[in-house]
Amino acid sequence: MTVTITAFEASPDHGRGLARDMRVRWALEEVGQPYEVRLLSFKALKEPAHLAVHPFGQIPTYDEGDLSLFETGSILLHIAECHAGLLPNDADARARAITWMFAALSTVEPPIVDREAAVLLDRDKPWYEARLPILDGRVRARLDQLSDRLGATDWLDGRFSAADILMVTVLRRLESSGILDDYPNLCAYIDRGKARPAYKRAFEAQLAVFTAAEARS
Amino acid sequence: MTVTITAFEASPDHGRGLARDMRVRWALEEVGQPYEVRLLSFKALKEPAHLAVHPFGQIPTYDEGDLSLFETGSILLHIAECHAGLLPNDADARARAITWMFAALSTVEPPIVDREAAVLLDRDKPWYEARLPILDGRVRARLDQLSDRLGATDWLDGRFSAADILMVTVLRRLESSGILDDYPNLCAYIDRGKARPAYKRAFEAQLAVFTAAEARS
Repeated sequence: MTVTITAFEASPDHGRGLARDMRVRWALEEVGQPYEVRLLSFKALKEPAHLAVHPFGQIPTYDEGDLSLFETGSILLHIAECHAGLLPNDADARARAITWMFAALSTVEPPIVDREAAVLLDRDKPWYEARLPILDGRVRARLDQLSDRLGATDWLDGRFSAADILMVTVLRRLESSGILDDYPNLCAYIDRGKARPAYKRAFEAQLAVFTAAEARS
Repeated sequence: MTVTITAFEASPDHGRGLARDMRVRWALEEVGQPYEVRLLSFKALKEPAHLAVHPFGQIPTYDEGDLSLFETGSILLHIAECHAGLLPNDADARARAITWMFAALSTVEPPIVDREAAVLLDRDKPWYEARLPILDGRVRARLDQLSDRLGATDWLDGRFSAADILMVTVLRRLESSGILDDYPNLCAYIDRGKARPAYKRAFEAQLAVFTAAEARS
């Protein structure tokens, strides 16, 4: 069965692997599932053909035969159910790993996205300087808790899982902020993720898309 | 096996069923699983005993024998895997319903929580009046897309599922905002959720906790 995902034709992150297709590429590389990529312009994201698959007009989507999915959490869970290696076999351990998948997306990522949105969109606003420390504080509150829980362990709950793919890519959004410098165990955790051969293959693949777009423009 | 969840001893929503234990209560009522509730003070949420179960110091948690879970998305998915009625049996339909669970929590809820946080915490800030229309706009962008997709159908994807429990409870957070007035099909969708006997039993149960707390104070 051919797997096709969508990604940005020209990623706004300049090939740094921060767009959400990176999460799906990484998961597919971990399980050795080949995939094709359909590239979309920003304009195409808001057109009816794409909205029929992704009602919120984002990337990535995931197509496999008659099945179309969106939301990286759901796509990773589906890949984990079709292949060994991304979730534990033991039922309780599996439920705990899924808990961490939701925690990455529902609890840790939102304050990080908020801060990122302010840095990107609010720099010219009169409230920018006053609000940034508040937003930093909300991010740090979550990182404090995550860092306490992770401690000296390698991964979120036992062996590497789909939850680590989500959490590492969520935390990477902070790489340019300087905030991570205060969390050595989270930096080491991110580095462990980035050292995985599957991560490296996924990263190179998304970078190649950006490099090709640059060469054309 | 006894199921025990945690909830606020005195919910800040004054018994309106907006705290996240409502989602778990509703799911448990849908499948007919009895449960016990352990009530926690705000102080207890930040104590080591609770942080050992919920590293981010929130409610609800879910205990069943040796298994402890947090994150409402993960708890609902676990309940759906242990009981019939919350997810379709067909594999593709199940994957689509899970996609909507993630969409409710990762895509629709964050801008709603942002707006709510500003209304609760930023009213005295000099930027409050200028930012509120921006936050409203982000919420409306998501509601426009959700409303378009829902159209005249009863539930998000075919039959009622755990995704509808999450989406209805996420949208209910906007009930006091006035924003929902512009989305008649979303209002009707929320009302369909609230009309379910399982919703009503869950609502009464959480209200009883608040009423008892009021009587004591």
